[in-house]
Formats: sequence, structure tokens, C-alpha cells
Amino acid sequence: MRSAVCPGSFDPVTNGHVDVFTRASDMADQVTIAVLVNRTKQSLFSLDERVALLTASVAHLPNVTVDVFEGLLVEWCRAHGVKHVIKGLRAVSDFDYELQMAQLNFRLAEVETAFVSTNPKYSFLSSSIVKEVARYGGDVSGLVPDAVSDALRAKFATTGGA
Amino acid sequence: MRSAVCPGSFDPVTNGHVDVFTRASDMADQVTIAVLVNRTKQSLFSLDERVALLTASVAHLPNVTVDVFEGLLVEWCRAHGVKHVIKGLRAVSDFDYELQMAQLNFRLAEVETAFVSTNPKYSFLSSSIVKEVARYGGDVSGLVPDAVSDALRAKFATTGGA
Amino acid sequence: MRSAVCPGSFDPVTNGHVDVFTRASDMADQVTIAVLVNRTKQSLFSLDERVALLTASVAHLPNVTVDVFEGLLVEWCRAHGVKHVIKGLRAVSDFDYELQMAQLNFRLAEVETAFVSTNPKYSFLSSSIVKEVARYGGDVSGLVPDAVSDALRAKFATTGGA
Amino acid sequence: MRSAVCPGSFDPVTNGHVDVFTRASDMADQVTIAVLVNRTKQSLFSLDERVALLTASVAHLPNVTVDVFEGLLVEWCRAHGVKHVIKGLRAVSDFDYELQMAQLNFRLAEVETAFVSTNPKYSFLSSSIVKEVARYGGDVSGLVPDAVSDALRAKFATTGGA
Amino acid sequence: MRSAVCPGSFDPVTNGHVDVFTRASDMADQVTIAVLVNRTKQSLFSLDERVALLTASVAHLPNVTVDVFEGLLVEWCRAHGVKHVIKGLRAVSDFDYELQMAQLNFRLAEVETAFVSTNPKYSFLSSSIVKEVARYGGDVSGLVPDAVSDALRAKFATTGGA
Amino acid sequence: MRSAVCPGSFDPVTNGHVDVFTRASDMADQVTIAVLVNRTKQSLFSLDERVALLTASVAHLPNVTVDVFEGLLVEWCRAHGVKHVIKGLRAVSDFDYELQMAQLNFRLAEVETAFVSTNPKYSFLSSSIVKEVARYGGDVSGLVPDAVSDALRAKFATTGGA
Repeated sequence: MRSAVCPGSFDPVTNGHVDVFTRASDMADQVTIAVLVNRTKQSLFSLDERVALLTASVAHLPNVTVDVFEGLLVEWCRAHGVKHVIKGLRAVSDFDYELQMAQLNFRLAEVETAFVSTNPKYSFLSSSIVKEVARYGGDVSGLVPDAVSDALRAKFATTGGA
Repeated sequence: MRSAVCPGSFDPVTNGHVDVFTRASDMADQVTIAVLVNRTKQSLFSLDERVALLTASVAHLPNVTVDVFEGLLVEWCRAHGVKHVIKGLRAVSDFDYELQMAQLNFRLAEVETAFVSTNPKYSFLSSSIVKEVARYGGDVSGLVPDAVSDALRAKFATTGGA
Repeated sequence: MRSAVCPGSFDPVTNGHVDVFTRASDMADQVTIAVLVNRTKQSLFSLDERVALLTASVAHLPNVTVDVFEGLLVEWCRAHGVKHVIKGLRAVSDFDYELQMAQLNFRLAEVETAFVSTNPKYSFLSSSIVKEVARYGGDVSGLVPDAVSDALRAKFATTGGA
Repeated sequence: MRSAVCPGSFDPVTNGHVDVFTRASDMADQVTIAVLVNRTKQSLFSLDERVALLTASVAHLPNVTVDVFEGLLVEWCRAHGVKHVIKGLRAVSDFDYELQMAQLNFRLAEVETAFVSTNPKYSFLSSSIVKEVARYGGDVSGLVPDAVSDALRAKFATTGGA
Repeated sequence: MRSAVCPGSFDPVTNGHVDVFTRASDMADQVTIAVLVNRTKQSLFSLDERVALLTASVAHLPNVTVDVFEGLLVEWCRAHGVKHVIKGLRAVSDFDYELQMAQLNFRLAEVETAFVSTNPKYSFLSSSIVKEVARYGGDVSGLVPDAVSDALRAKFATTGGA
Repeated sequence: MRSAVCPGSFDPVTNGHVDVFTRASDMADQVTIAVLVNRTKQSLFSLDERVALLTASVAHLPNVTVDVFEGLLVEWCRAHGVKHVIKGLRAVSDFDYELQMAQLNFRLAEVETAFVSTNPKYSFLSSSIVKEVARYGGDVSGLVPDAVSDALRAKFATTGGA
């Protein structure tokens, strides 16, 4: 596989995501993390913040870069000549939705999706859970990269956890 | 089966829905598509638009008509003397929720639900996915009836895809 | 629906099966229970015994009869001009397998499958569980028709539960 | 098990919840129902109303009390020296999410979760479904404790079902 | 919970099982591991070997003992005055089957089942997988207690892996 | 990805398998189909027949070859310096089992598994279903490569379908 894309919101990136990026970097010559710009959904971190945290979190993976996209993933794929998506699968509920998206993307533009299983120790991890834990002062070290841990602390110190 | 009802939001109707209506029309003498009026959820198409698109999409099925309902489906069933619901099943996540609704409707009013499997080629299709694709200018032909394809183009041309 | 078939091994028929037959008898003008002749799998009850127990269990449903078939269900359907299968769904594991069979039967002979949800109070019931309970002298009344309860007692009295 | 906690929103409590509390009261010497204070999600019943309805619904269970918590459940557990959560499981979709939460709570504070299966006759029940039925004047007796049934009638009489 | 039972075949016991026993020993005053005598299914280890390996594996848990049973688990429960079963849940496919058994046991004898989630790091572990790995000389250390690891080596050295 | 392996029994290869091989051949520079030698399970086609049918079915994919293995897949991977497995996923029941195997293979030898979704039109296809259909004279064209279709006809003509 010459190139592949790992799409998502990454609000914020977790160690489960980094686990997927690491596996992807071993499968494709060049991996792009594509951050979805979703104007209708409120995010905790701004697009710039999310890109910065991702960039810091994959600095050790030389063939992984970060980009943003708005609209359909298949359009980004077409524009960049990328034919493969790589996604992590944790649970059955992931599977149903991701299979639908995979079949849609193949139908729309013959873009293929490869799923990798995440390390079981991250099977309960999601961006939502990390934000919930951090919001109430819980310890997220070991769940997210250090840069994210710091950013969460700063974010909730500022807003007082509200 | 003398009569049956296919309930839903149909915002908008897809070829997956039409596949279910076609199977239902073969199972019951008379089929009513019942469009749910949900005042708390914003829809892309108005109730009138959704009914018009449905009516156009099932014009070739002589024993299928379109109606609207607000509130509980079982009340509509009682008022119309209909004892059977027919629903399509695509994935396991559908199954869990639909089984709950089926058991509720039986408990409330002894209304039975029959599930039909949709054609696998539509297994990834949903109204949400169709709207997402159309919003960003993706090609939805083959995924929805022609009337819906035109309506989506008109809708997003007007709003500029926002 | 003019006619429908409920296929299975029914070794032996349970109250969960009877629940499905009752719902089927309300959906189609004529329902045939088709007992699969499987020469490679050992059964507790002989084919004749299974047919007799089924016949006794649906005596109160005037539009339900019992037949046997060997080979492909779709061939039986073709020979009898039946276009619809009706099956009960209890759990997600049922769903996966039954969906595969439904799609296969449609692909082979355009035979449609309608699924009905069984009464939740029978959700744990299966022929295997009933045999296991009866083998060790457990009480199966309420789980199977009376005729089956008697037949199980006779069967395991004879064999000494071995 | 000396003590256990049953967390939830309980907006409002259903007979399915009471079934879980009853099983929990048989497993642990002391059970606390902990009502989540969620300031970002709108509830039908106020926190005080939910606590009052719960208290009335478990009056017959001498070792069950009601409390409230805000933030992380594991913090409430730490503060009260409780090491076990007891949750009901109805369907596969419950399972996925609840397993994630169980693994998170164990990771954060070694808090264990025990799941009990609810009575199949309540397998379709949820607070959302009860509210939907009551909102449109459907009959919820048998689905919720009497106190809740009365409270729902009063609530929707006042608001006119809107 | 005064007493609870952990039933199974344990052919052989794995670290995933020991994880469940440890959690159970923390939930009930007295835990019995009940090994199923199944005369129709061939096992790698004899009943005596399985009991010995279990006994060695839970020697550090003072309130856990090992027993055997034949026939219905609920009969063993009745004979010993035990009202609670504790089982581990790894995956959705476990869940479906275990939920059926739990509902059956409650129906037959009001025996309750509590499920505990196993540590994610054991989520892939089963007795079958362990035997498969050991049969072909794979390394099972970390997957099973030391006594089991030794027993597997001895077993397959004798039989030559056939 | 430089090299990858697609393991399986392939008794016989179906068009669903060929779909997976095609996707794999697009993901890795070199793909090996590894046929499992299972001495305890009876197969319809001999190992040599299965290899021959596979070889014929992927003749148009220049970077795909066929090999056999006995024992643990990870040992084959170690011996051949292959770090990636590619598997097709059809349904949720596949997912549970395949995820277990993927986590086991990673634990044993850091061998990664990538899952590809099969074309929905093959979602009901399995080797077992194909054999069942062919055994009773059903039409399997379109479900398997032509060579397999011929081989099945020859096989069941010889054995008389028994």
C-alpha cells in the first residue's frame, strides 16, 4: 500500500488512535491523518489545536502527516490519489457503522477500507470518555499522549470544569 | 395479511426503503407508508415534501399508499384496524432497537412486526448517509429514486450546501 | 400473503416455535411447517415423531399443516409455489445466520424471508436447551406443548437419561 | 459483597430498573441507587422528583437507599468506600457501552462492575420509551411503578403533551 | 452475597478464568468452582486433572473451592443452597448464549446470574485457543497458570502433538 | 505493506474469498494464500484439490501465490518473514471470532491483522453454504469461480449427492 488515510474528529487524539496510526504506518508507505471539519458539531478543541496535538503525537512516526478535510472523505481521497482508508475497530457497535461507511466509500469512489484491531488495553477508550474523565479531574495519563494530557488540564482549568 | 404499515421518517426515502415497500406490497393486500410527524427533530424535507417524494417513488406499486401519523404508531394502527408492521433490517444495530419497538408495540396493542431483510446491495444505505453525500455534491444516483435525487440537488443548490 | 413456510428441525417443537406458527398463521392464508430431513445429524426424535408432535401442537391453528423436505428449502418452495419463509428471531446470533440464509434463498430463487420477533418470555428457549433440561429430569412444562412434555418423559425414562 | 451502587439517570425509574435493584439487594448487604446529575442534558423530571420516585419505588427493599452524584462515578465510589457497581443488561447494544464503562471504571479506580440480566418481560423497557408512550397518552401501567405512572400523567396533563 | 458458583468445563483453566474467580471471591463470602462432567464431549484433561489444576490455580484465594457436577447446574445449586452464578463475559457472542442460560436458570429455579467483565488483556483467551497454541508448541506462558503450562507441555510431549 | 497472508480452509474457494484476495493484492506487494492443513476436520476437497482450485482462481492476480501450512499461523509468518494477515469480514459473528484470533496472533508474535469488508453482494456467501447448495443440485454459478463450479458438479455427480 503506497498511501492511506486515517480520518476522524480526534477531539482529542487518544492513545487508542496513536495505536492505530502506528499500525497504519507499518502498512502503508505514506499515511495521512485527515481531521474532519464539522461545522455543525461543537468540539472541545479547535481545528488548529487538534492538528497541533496530532502532529505532536505522531512526531516519532516519520511517514505520518496531518491534514484537514471538509465534506466527503472520498473527495479528499480523489484529490490526493489515495485509495485506502485505515480505521481502528474496538467493538461490535463500531463495526456496524464503520462497515456502512466502508461500503459507501467503495460505492462512491472505489475507496477501500482496511480495519485494524486496536490493542485490547485500549478497547474502552474514546475521545468522549477521555473528555468526561478530564472534565471532572480524573487522571487521564496513560490514556492520551502527554501533550493531550497537558492540553486537557489547561482547558478545564480555564473553564472550571463546566 | 390483509393490511400492513411501514412507519418511518423517510427524510428522504431511499432505494433501500423502496426495496422494503416492494417486498411489503407482496406480503400484504394493502400497505400504508406512515410518515412520522416529529416536531422535536429538524428534518431536511418538510412533511409535505416527504409525502410527495414517497408517493412518486411507489407510484408503480398499486396496493401501496402514503399517510402521516403523530404520536404512537399503535394508535394509528388501532384507528385504521391494522395489526401488522413491516420493517427492513440491515444490520445488528438496527435489530436491537427494532426488536425493542416490536415488543413494545405488541405489549401496548398486540400489533405484530414482521422484519424483511433488505437487498445486500442497499445494506449501507440510510437517509442520513444520502443527505451527507448530497450535501457535499456527491453522486446519489442509484441510491435514491430519481425524484429524490432531483429534490436533493435543488435543496442543496438553494442552501449552498451549508 | 397467500402461503408461507416455517422450516426447521423441530427436535422437538417448543412453545417458542408454536408462538412463531401462531404469528405466521395470522400473516398468511396458508402456513406449512416444513421439517428438514437431515441424514447427517442425529436427532432425539425420529422424523415421524417430530411430525406427529408438530401436528398435535398446531391442531388449534386451522390454516397450518406439516410437511417434510430434504435438500434445499428453495426447491420445496418452487415445487409448492410458496414464495415466503417466516422465521422467528430471538437473539443477535440468530440474526446473523438467518440473514445469510434469507439472502441466499432470495439469490437462488427469489424466495423472501419475513422475520417475526418471538415473545420475550420465550427468548431463552431452544430445542437443545429443552432436551438438556429433560435429559436430567428438569421440569419442562410451560416450555413445550403437553404432548412434547410427555414424549420427552417417555424418551428419557426408556433410555435412562444417558 | 458488602456494598454496591446502581448508577443511572432514572428519568424516570421503570419496572426494569426496580427488577435490577431487587436483584442487587439480594447480592449486596447495602445497595445505593446513585442518580447522575447531568447539567448538560435536559430531563423530564427534576433531580428531586427523580429521587422521590426512586425512594417510593424501593420502599419495600430495606437495604436499598438513594443518593445523587455529579462527575465521575468512581469518585463517588472512592468517597463512599464502594467497590462494586451493579448494572442491568438488556441487549447487545447495552453490552458494548456498559463493557466500555466497566473497563474504564476498573482502570481508573479498580471499581468492579457486575451485570445482571433483567427479566425478559422487561427487555424492551427504557426510560425514553416510557416517556414517549406517556407523552401521547399511551398506557404505561405495568411498565413503571404506580408512583411514576401518576407522575407521568400529571406531568403531561400540565404540559399538554408538548 | 453469601455463596456463588462459577460453572464451566475448564479444559484447562486459563488466566481469564482465574481473573473471574478472583473477582467472584471479592463478591461472595464463599465461591465454588463447579466443573461440568460432560460424558458426550471429549476433553483433553480428565475430570481429576481439571480439578487438580483448578485447585492449584486458586490456592491463593482462601474462600474459593472446587467441586464437580453432572446434569443441570440448577440441581447442584438447589442441593447446595446456592442462589447465584458468576460468569465472565468477553465478547458479544458470549453474551447471547450466557443470557439464554441465565434466563433459563432463573426460570427453572430462580437462580440468578451475575456477569463480570474480564480484564481486556484476556479478552481473546479461551481454553480452545490455549490448547490449539500448546498443541503446536506455541508459548502459552502468561495465558495460563504455571501448573497448566507444565501440564500442557507434558500432555503434548506424550502424544506428540497429534 | 510488503507482504501479507490470507489464511483459511478454502473448502472450496468462493467468489467472496476471491474478492478479498483482490483487495489484498492491491494492499500488499506480495500476497500468499495459506491453506490450513487440519487433520481432525473432514473436508470435501483434498488439500491438493483446494490448492489447485485456488491457484486457478487467482491466476489473474500476478502478486498472489498459494501455500499450505499446518499448526499455528504465526509460525508460518515467522518462517516466511510475513508480519500482516488480511481477512474478510462479512458479519458481526465473524467479527467476534476474528478479533480474538487477531489479538492472539499479535500477542504470540506481533503479527498484525487487517480486515477488509467484502462486497455486500457476497455477504451471505460461505464455503459451507456453497457445498450445501451444490450437494442438492442448486445453481452455484456466480457464487464461485468457474473451476470450482465444475469441480463441485463432478464431486457430487460421483458421490450421488450423499
